[in-house]
Amino acid sequence: MARIVQKFGGTSVGDIERIRNVAARVQREAAAGNEVAVVLSAMAGTTDQLVAWTREAAPAADPREYDVVVSAGEQVTIGLLAIVLGELGVPARSWTSWQLPIRTDGAHAKARIETIDTAALEADLAAGRVAIVPGFQGISPDGRITTLGRGGSDTSAVALAAALNADRCDIFTDVDGVYTCDPRIVAKARKLERITYEEMLESASQGAKVLQTRAVEMGMKHHVRIQVLSSFEDVPGTLVVDEDEIVEQEIISGIAYSRDEAKITVARVADKPGVAAAIFGPLADAMINVDMIVQNVSEDGEETDITFTVPEGDHQRAIDAIKRSRDAIGYARLDHDANVVKVSVIGVGMRSHAGVAQRMFRTLAEKGINIQVISTSEIKVSVLIAEEYTELALRALHSAYGLDAM
Amino acid sequence: MARIVQKFGGTSVGDIERIRNVAARVQREAAAGNEVAVVLSAMAGTTDQLVAWTREAAPAADPREYDVVVSAGEQVTIGLLAIVLGELGVPARSWTSWQLPIRTDGAHAKARIETIDTAALEADLAAGRVAIVPGFQGISPDGRITTLGRGGSDTSAVALAAALNADRCDIFTDVDGVYTCDPRIVAKARKLERITYEEMLESASQGAKVLQTRAVEMGMKHHVRIQVLSSFEDVPGTLVVDEDEIVEQEIISGIAYSRDEAKITVARVADKPGVAAAIFGPLADAMINVDMIVQNVSEDGEETDITFTVPEGDHQRAIDAIKRSRDAIGYARLDHDANVVKVSVIGVGMRSHAGVAQRMFRTLAEKGINIQVISTSEIKVSVLIAEEYTELALRALHSAYGLDAM
Repeated sequence: MARIVQKFGGTSVGDIERIRNVAARVQREAAAGNEVAVVLSAMAGTTDQLVAWTREAAPAADPREYDVVVSAGEQVTIGLLAIVLGELGVPARSWTSWQLPIRTDGAHAKARIETIDTAALEADLAAGRVAIVPGFQGISPDGRITTLGRGGSDTSAVALAAALNADRCDIFTDVDGVYTCDPRIVAKARKLERITYEEMLESASQGAKVLQTRAVEMGMKHHVRIQVLSSFEDVPGTLVVDEDEIVEQEIISGIAYSRDEAKITVARVADKPGVAAAIFGPLADAMINVDMIVQNVSEDGEETDITFTVPEGDHQRAIDAIKRSRDAIGYARLDHDANVVKVSVIGVGMRSHAGVAQRMFRTLAEKGINIQVISTSEIKVSVLIAEEYTELALRALHSAYGLDAM
Repeated sequence: MARIVQKFGGTSVGDIERIRNVAARVQREAAAGNEVAVVLSAMAGTTDQLVAWTREAAPAADPREYDVVVSAGEQVTIGLLAIVLGELGVPARSWTSWQLPIRTDGAHAKARIETIDTAALEADLAAGRVAIVPGFQGISPDGRITTLGRGGSDTSAVALAAALNADRCDIFTDVDGVYTCDPRIVAKARKLERITYEEMLESASQGAKVLQTRAVEMGMKHHVRIQVLSSFEDVPGTLVVDEDEIVEQEIISGIAYSRDEAKITVARVADKPGVAAAIFGPLADAMINVDMIVQNVSEDGEETDITFTVPEGDHQRAIDAIKRSRDAIGYARLDHDANVVKVSVIGVGMRSHAGVAQRMFRTLAEKGINIQVISTSEIKVSVLIAEEYTELALRALHSAYGLDAM
């Protein structure tokens, strides 16, 4: 007997017919003798509608009342799934976040789960009942409704799995697992059987987006084995686990990319202390997230260029912020380019293997692709290249690191 | 300074624009220096959709989970009104039924409010904040969500007014008050300034339907002054009050009618004990509500006819139930007629005035209208007549009792 948490997103519970499919999956897991807790999102579109109403009601809604409104959709789906399971003869009941309760901090609209009281759930599971819990929400220290921010249901599921010491947390989604690369671009991409939390975090922030970053972080912290799998097909997905659960670790687990990048170069600034602060201060004030940063070696010891990337949506705002600070920064020229893509090779194995970055640079050079910016972390090497080379680069790297399916 | 409870139904909060109108009304009451608590329904159509989903999910849904689903709509409207009021600079907050809490019995889908804990609300009102509460729902003794049945928001409002010792409970609706008769039929009908709870109860069950019967009963029990008024026009409505609050009591307050009636005559049954039980037992078993009943005086002391009315929707089921019991009842013939209307004159004044019924019978006779069945209560005389005479009878009686507007 195992204890499983299953999480289904908005598309999976989009209408009663789909909720019946969810119920069938839950029933199968319960019939196998497992204890099952289910975390649900609202029906697809519901939360968007609720958010739209709050915006129509006021441009800057009171976040406490915003949370009251936008948390309503999950109450509908948990009740409906309980009804359908009851009809199938599977003992089940819904639990609202205040009935358990799921306690969060008081940061409305972006709250963090602090504790989940599982006493009632444990009793339910022990009695053979399926427990159904709303994702995305909780209650604050002063007893008000909170929400976790968009996509928060993944986090709810992993937090519940941690609180219940579950053997596994299955996240049902519209992809069937995590691939070595985007299969729409690289036909030879393979589905990974396992991936580490760290690799998943690097992939997610690179645009793989199959699993909320905070959910992965929470899984890593509490050692929750997370499975990403398809709601619509019945095939095993990808397990996200601790590094020591992966026996034969490949050096590289995948190649990620993000087109959502814009490059800005502040040319010929004085090579002296305080210049970087003069550039990045205004960007921080404008809440613009700067990713890669390089500063060229100064040729004459007096002037240098500073290049960095920002999300494409913040491109114009970043340029405006720099221009407004021109006097303080004292630059000669501002260059920018949104036709860039960030390509990353990711793998915990590179910690113990030399030459990973070198292979990347050589592979790209062989294809005549110029590297504009480089940044590295312990388990990732990222380069910025011209966007038109995206497909060529991904396929070449996928082969070069031996990731191609046979 | 007064303490007012305002209740707005689904049409009044049907979209953000209408919620702004509600907010303007709340703001005006608060700006006049009053303490204001607001009870809201879900947006028009929302609860119907939720009910439809539960039916699609299972023909007989677990009532505990049914309540989880169908209670979700009010959470949306209370939050949205709080947001709009905040935008207007009116301090306000929403309270869910579990935050207060509103305690009900455990009769899911038709629960009764037992207590409302007003400590938190009192503090809010004292601090000048508008308190916004969901109608139609509460929590059961074991902490699950309950609902009060359709239209239960009126009851929630009156219960809250009672718990808060409010000076008045304003029920905003799509009519602007209670009339002496249906103004669509009787052009000279007048809006009543005041009506007693008893008269309101008799009118409501006769199809006036401006206020939930249970809400009126609760108002009567706790002496809550209820005002029925229009959401869309800014004119005084009708006050529903204790009899001693009405100084110049008219004998008759109004003429009500109900077309939702069908007459059934069980002809030539034995005139002996047990026959009535043989007829009405099967109807009670079939959950059919019998209204008027008359038994003719037996001519020969051996056989008699029994006539009664049932709601038109139960007409065929009632006939079927009687036919199935034919052997036990032993009747000669079964007659039935759905083309009937029940017309009632209502007024607490008739307790102390003779001749009220006589005037009704004479008026109808003068117009050549045959009375098929008569039933009376302390404050009401009802007759069953052919449906085609409805308008004629209502106008004639309205004049005969001196109710016509000048």
